[in-house]
Amino acid sequence: MSRIEPVRVSSRDNPLLKDLRRLARDGAAYRRMGRLWLEGDHLCVAALDRGMQPAAAVFAESFWPTAPQRLAEACPRVYLVPDALMAEASGLESPAPMGFVLPLPPVSEAAPGQPSVVLDRLQDPGNVGSILRSASAFGFRQVVALKGTVALWSPKVLRAGMGAHFALSLVEGASSADVASLGLPLLATSSHQGTWLHRAALPWPCGWMMGHEGQGLDAGLDALAAMHIRIAQPGGEESLNVAAAAAVCLHASAATQLAGQR
Amino acid sequence: MSRIEPVRVSSRDNPLLKDLRRLARDGAAYRRMGRLWLEGDHLCVAALDRGMQPAAAVFAESFWPTAPQRLAEACPRVYLVPDALMAEASGLESPAPMGFVLPLPPVSEAAPGQPSVVLDRLQDPGNVGSILRSASAFGFRQVVALKGTVALWSPKVLRAGMGAHFALSLVEGASSADVASLGLPLLATSSHQGTWLHRAALPWPCGWMMGHEGQGLDAGLDALAAMHIRIAQPGGEESLNVAAAAAVCLHASAATQLAGQR
Repeated sequence: MSRIEPVRVSSRDNPLLKDLRRLARDGAAYRRMGRLWLEGDHLCVAALDRGMQPAAAVFAESFWPTAPQRLAEACPRVYLVPDALMAEASGLESPAPMGFVLPLPPVSEAAPGQPSVVLDRLQDPGNVGSILRSASAFGFRQVVALKGTVALWSPKVLRAGMGAHFALSLVEGASSADVASLGLPLLATSSHQGTWLHRAALPWPCGWMMGHEGQGLDAGLDALAAMHIRIAQPGGEESLNVAAAAAVCLHASAATQLAGQR
Repeated sequence: MSRIEPVRVSSRDNPLLKDLRRLARDGAAYRRMGRLWLEGDHLCVAALDRGMQPAAAVFAESFWPTAPQRLAEACPRVYLVPDALMAEASGLESPAPMGFVLPLPPVSEAAPGQPSVVLDRLQDPGNVGSILRSASAFGFRQVVALKGTVALWSPKVLRAGMGAHFALSLVEGASSADVASLGLPLLATSSHQGTWLHRAALPWPCGWMMGHEGQGLDAGLDALAAMHIRIAQPGGEESLNVAAAAAVCLHASAATQLAGQR
């Protein structure tokens, strides 16, 4: 790492560390600050692979000697931070030994006609990150989050998304009017009505709407659905985890896409 | 709640509270203590609905006046605890205002021939809880966790499982010999070989093997697979969350079961 001259930061009051702590603790702070705090080399590599240009890299002192050179070379500024202060700047249960500061990607408007997943007030960062991964894997291009959904770019959702954020167009703070304006056949899951997913002829492109973990889909959104879809549960349990249900539904759309290409 | 005479506990040093804190903080403590700490009314109701017999109910003082009577009546002993001490006895981010102490259900041995999901060293409680829900919903009867998997009855897995624990036979600390002795066609997912899931003719009953979040399935287990299955990912992402992949696979088995019944 000889050519890179990192800046050593040792004071807890350093403005950079203050910013990182704010970004780590308040999952929605990126909206005010216009910057993301990407923790962990896996996520940082994923951002680079998708062409993101970080503003700075931050390394824990103990990790720096063995840090992959690519991660430092990608950044105009590189900071070295004592391990204890690095841990304080983490929003994760297991703090990462490095991270990027990344300008928040331009805020997208919902684009009509793009295969979409609509998130209605989902609360759990792990669920939302998992759904972003599934959306990207199964050929969706856009995720539209209704107002009240957990902040999509928060550290916990970023961690769970494993880089899927950078492959998708993400819209936050959407209204049901925005969803209606997608101009897509909208699909909603239901526990008691509709077509069985494993027998359904699904439209493509389409928009899948996934609802709040406890309350399900808002009635106004549900009324926009062109189809209601049931997931067969021969075991008789009342409900699936929402990210599990989303995976099953989005995979069915992936199979539809592939059938259309044959 | 007039007929129930709760016992008030007010000291942090009370043996009950010490036990609850131990169960909350050490996810595997139930193995030594032979008891579970079920937090939250949703989970407690699910346990009652499945015929479980709790040893005691514990209520936060502020919740007691409005607590559902059924929860207290189901227990031979009822304790009232100051809210602050109740919060200390929680293993969850949002502490619940009540919980049951439940004898650990009898430890199961892996039963040959039962439709099964095999968990190979999965680490994330949310993932494991979600997979238990999917397993139960999609008609599987048994979950076999290899040594090194997160403790299945820990508070976080219980919370994520939403009651599915009580509908399944759960085997912990299994070896690959135990998996081989299931006498089932075993299925493994693969990112680069095998039959596409959406075109596969799946056997039933079967055992799905799901691997560690980072490392995937152990090679010795993978060698036991009768089929390797690929999940189509037209979006080109490299990987799915393991609970999302499990949901997609187990749902395909649910469709297989239903096709067999027609």
